[in-house]
Amino acid sequence: MAPRYAPSLRSRLGPLLLFLQTGFILIYAFYFEIQENVVDEASFRDAYAEFQDVNVMVVLGFGFLCTFLVRHGFSSSGFNLLVAAIATQWALMLTGLESWYDRGKIPLDLRSVLVAEMCAASALISMGAVMGKANPVQLVLLALLEVSGFVLNEQLLQGLLKVRPLKGIMLLHIFGAFFGLTLTWILYRKGSERGFEKEKFDQKPGLFSMLGSVFLWMFWPTFNSVLVDDRFPGRKLGAVYSTYLALAVSAVTAASVSVLSSPRGKLNLIQMQSCILAGGVAVGVSMSAVHQPWEAMAIGFAAAVLSATGFKYLKSHMLLAFHCHDTAAILSTHGLPGLLGWFAHLILQIKDSGDPTVAIRFAVFHICTLLVTITVSLTMGTLTGFLLRLNVWRPPQNRKCFDDQAFWEFPHLAVRK
Amino acid sequence: MAPRYAPSLRSRLGPLLLFLQTGFILIYAFYFEIQENVVDEASFRDAYAEFQDVNVMVVLGFGFLCTFLVRHGFSSSGFNLLVAAIATQWALMLTGLESWYDRGKIPLDLRSVLVAEMCAASALISMGAVMGKANPVQLVLLALLEVSGFVLNEQLLQGLLKVRPLKGIMLLHIFGAFFGLTLTWILYRKGSERGFEKEKFDQKPGLFSMLGSVFLWMFWPTFNSVLVDDRFPGRKLGAVYSTYLALAVSAVTAASVSVLSSPRGKLNLIQMQSCILAGGVAVGVSMSAVHQPWEAMAIGFAAAVLSATGFKYLKSHMLLAFHCHDTAAILSTHGLPGLLGWFAHLILQIKDSGDPTVAIRFAVFHICTLLVTITVSLTMGTLTGFLLRLNVWRPPQNRKCFDDQAFWEFPHLAVRK
Amino acid sequence: MAPRYAPSLRSRLGPLLLFLQTGFILIYAFYFEIQENVVDEASFRDAYAEFQDVNVMVVLGFGFLCTFLVRHGFSSSGFNLLVAAIATQWALMLTGLESWYDRGKIPLDLRSVLVAEMCAASALISMGAVMGKANPVQLVLLALLEVSGFVLNEQLLQGLLKVRPLKGIMLLHIFGAFFGLTLTWILYRKGSERGFEKEKFDQKPGLFSMLGSVFLWMFWPTFNSVLVDDRFPGRKLGAVYSTYLALAVSAVTAASVSVLSSPRGKLNLIQMQSCILAGGVAVGVSMSAVHQPWEAMAIGFAAAVLSATGFKYLKSHMLLAFHCHDTAAILSTHGLPGLLGWFAHLILQIKDSGDPTVAIRFAVFHICTLLVTITVSLTMGTLTGFLLRLNVWRPPQNRKCFDDQAFWEFPHLAVRK
Repeated sequence: MAPRYAPSLRSRLGPLLLFLQTGFILIYAFYFEIQENVVDEASFRDAYAEFQDVNVMVVLGFGFLCTFLVRHGFSSSGFNLLVAAIATQWALMLTGLESWYDRGKIPLDLRSVLVAEMCAASALISMGAVMGKANPVQLVLLALLEVSGFVLNEQLLQGLLKVRPLKGIMLLHIFGAFFGLTLTWILYRKGSERGFEKEKFDQKPGLFSMLGSVFLWMFWPTFNSVLVDDRFPGRKLGAVYSTYLALAVSAVTAASVSVLSSPRGKLNLIQMQSCILAGGVAVGVSMSAVHQPWEAMAIGFAAAVLSATGFKYLKSHMLLAFHCHDTAAILSTHGLPGLLGWFAHLILQIKDSGDPTVAIRFAVFHICTLLVTITVSLTMGTLTGFLLRLNVWRPPQNRKCFDDQAFWEFPHLAVRK
Repeated sequence: MAPRYAPSLRSRLGPLLLFLQTGFILIYAFYFEIQENVVDEASFRDAYAEFQDVNVMVVLGFGFLCTFLVRHGFSSSGFNLLVAAIATQWALMLTGLESWYDRGKIPLDLRSVLVAEMCAASALISMGAVMGKANPVQLVLLALLEVSGFVLNEQLLQGLLKVRPLKGIMLLHIFGAFFGLTLTWILYRKGSERGFEKEKFDQKPGLFSMLGSVFLWMFWPTFNSVLVDDRFPGRKLGAVYSTYLALAVSAVTAASVSVLSSPRGKLNLIQMQSCILAGGVAVGVSMSAVHQPWEAMAIGFAAAVLSATGFKYLKSHMLLAFHCHDTAAILSTHGLPGLLGWFAHLILQIKDSGDPTVAIRFAVFHICTLLVTITVSLTMGTLTGFLLRLNVWRPPQNRKCFDDQAFWEFPHLAVRK
Repeated sequence: MAPRYAPSLRSRLGPLLLFLQTGFILIYAFYFEIQENVVDEASFRDAYAEFQDVNVMVVLGFGFLCTFLVRHGFSSSGFNLLVAAIATQWALMLTGLESWYDRGKIPLDLRSVLVAEMCAASALISMGAVMGKANPVQLVLLALLEVSGFVLNEQLLQGLLKVRPLKGIMLLHIFGAFFGLTLTWILYRKGSERGFEKEKFDQKPGLFSMLGSVFLWMFWPTFNSVLVDDRFPGRKLGAVYSTYLALAVSAVTAASVSVLSSPRGKLNLIQMQSCILAGGVAVGVSMSAVHQPWEAMAIGFAAAVLSATGFKYLKSHMLLAFHCHDTAAILSTHGLPGLLGWFAHLILQIKDSGDPTVAIRFAVFHICTLLVTITVSLTMGTLTGFLLRLNVWRPPQNRKCFDDQAFWEFPHLAVRK
């Protein structure tokens, strides 16, 4: 007979976190230094406000977005914080490798922390696909490997194809989504297609995930514009407006598609929460080619339609046909809008370049960028999947999936009942 | 026998939103351009932080303020986002008409988006009065008409009375409140005075509306100061302090009046949530005449007393005597404090102007401003009311009022029960 | 037989708040002026963004942190707002006494409001210890006396020991914690060791307190850096990075210790919520001596270990052995990490100063600072405790402790049941 309780993580999670954290402190002690020779006070403070917006998105937005699972709120928000804290420290090291090679020391400044938080965000996206079916040990390992893969991909793109860093980072949606999908495909559990016992959502936690979703919606213009080059203020402003308009259009379109695709003419809250963000994702990927408000709005419209129909029809097909159980629907929230953004970028750039030679050259280059990203993403996802399948990490039984009680103490249950 | 289910909105809401959104995109394609020749980076970033504060208030603050209705949380927050997204796009067009007339193109800059969000806020205030009794189709139409009326009112005030734009915008509380009250008076449903079956509040959603209320309370100083002229930093600072002090005083006074007006000496959470904001509303309307901290504090005190007693005694009288069912008590939250602020402005300005001729002139001008605003507000409210009474919009039955299940899918209900 | 209902506060809370608020308005009318001669617009706006971060922490963070008590959410968030509004107004007066003595007027600027909010934060920390067992009248008196004690302590430190204001303010954690502990020790109620009937926590409010905790976690870098001297931008930046790293390490370490100290290898959400903040507290106290990233990380690590073990083992010992019932575990959240930060400051400063004479002088001075702070804190806590024990404040009966229904109206209970 199977054990009644979820396996204890005492001998796995505690030592792993202690080992990682003490290791990180040692590495930081020898190789990091605080970059204190700032040019001026004003630029620090400006950057700091934007940094806080991104911080709110990563810690609060992603953390509360997945709380729609009725018995999984503690895990969604708590593990998100834990993984974000580890992934950011790890990404700071990996992205600083070049400086370390050149100068022996890695400088710590607001921009490097920002980039690290964005790498962490790509890990949080992947996490959405296995949320509820993996324990925190697996999530921490996932984050370490995903961030490594993402930084490797960026280095490859910059080295092989001379892709600008900003464009490389904005592929985080595509990279994270395909990584997560491969992972959850490999980690497939028999019986998933009938639904897990505790995988359901309820009205009150629904408002928490609305909160997370709304925070992502509000601060997405910062997310897209924060790394745009400061020397052209107009460009930064353009990124802000484009994202804002695309998000507004997405919100309206998502509601429209949601009500049209429902037989009884009702809205679906979780579908809306994912799809109102689709415009932000798509514009983020295509932003350097968007110059007119209507282009951003059209991209937002198409992204929301794609994302909402994907959520409605694709999620269950992925599960039944491909045995790929995508908890937080990251394919339709990040994957499809990301691909659409990539495609919109291609079209807009070809339209803008008068010369066909330039256009073809750009197209080849742009397609290669996508191919490299998807290849690295699938490869790393597969590797991570096989690593995480090992029983040594003590994954929860099917019956304990999507259940906070597998990982969290509930004193009143223990004491009073 | 009446049908058991709420009428389906599939054939109404979906096409309406699709039509509006594609129409907006076409209009934006031909007449809008992004204003990229920004003077300097610093001013953009400063304005952006303030813009985000207002964004948080409009999307999160107003959205969660009405979640105190126990079975209406999805609708309160979801429809708020939907309406805000549409109203902002619509307001951007209407407020840009002048530029379009002059130059053929409407420039998009942070200030115009800000003004548009504030127009959207006035629609969200009106929405509070009919919340729970109208379906999203009606709310979208309400928003379009309310914003049109509000922009018309501003144009009239500027054209006829040379009122400065800032002062015109700050009348949004008064305009929104009277528009909403007229509307809910015309949309009166028989039986409302006995209370709707599902109009109740509970402890846990109470914290969500506390969250919305607290976000409004925290960022109200930005809301009042953001459009104050930048060339006099002292004035902007004055607006921030005045609002902050008025809000602090309101919070204390609201608690005091709440406990004094309760026979058993208890506080009322919903009453407090409305009344802690009264000081911000009143100072917003009267701000250009407030020069001393104590003036702001006295206005905050009076506004909270008025708002708290209004909430306690006026709301039920309005319903029983005038058949005006004001769901979110917008009369005492926005209407009365707005009028008080208008009156305080009058008194302070008369006190400050030594010359009686100037004082009388100002009084006449100030009274005309209010009369025009209320006239436009009542007229547009009446028109909107008669339009929304049509059965073609399929309003929910009385039994389905204040019920998320009329508009939202609850998968676990459908599948598992 | 004891009365069934909690005693009515109508004759206590209402008049007290009215008296305080009208008194404050009169004092502000005669002695306060708005400081309008700002140097430049940019510096105002920068300071304003940071001010808003601190505002969010004080009103939202502290307010929602204590909502983990299942039947106490309204009180936790509502009384927090009330006390913050009163304490800030009161602290503005006390910290302005010097200006008043010199010039007859107290100027109101963003920095003075910020300092006042931080004094209010120290009162909110103390409030955590008696939360659920005191009524709002007692909490308001607590806040007035705690803020007075804290400002007195700062004046003593500056007068006697020439401690810089920033360092004095950062002792707010230690001052608040010891004040609150003394208070709850004096207010001890028989039977507390068996637990109050309604002192329990549940899953859904757990997410609200996660929200408060996460807001504190995100904005703590602002809290620590906001008063650091602007003329050395590097230093401010250093404070931001140190706090960020310490918080990230705390989050990971707290999870690790939590799972290691649980017999069944589970995490404890409330323990984690307190302990992820330990690094921020400790670095805040020691910040002027922290120059390397690893120092901040090591402090964060030690603080989280101390805080998590303190939470696990010390809280119940304090209750059973010392009759000190510390509701929100302020000893392990603020007290111990604060002391650790103080100690880390001592060690780092001694390490950095080559000259032993200087080192000894600093040590004596540093130890005196702590002794003065703890003495003032314990003395004021004792005085406040004896004042609050008077029955004239009508404290709730044991049966009504931790119960929102003692203080808040629940209309649906009264009307429908």
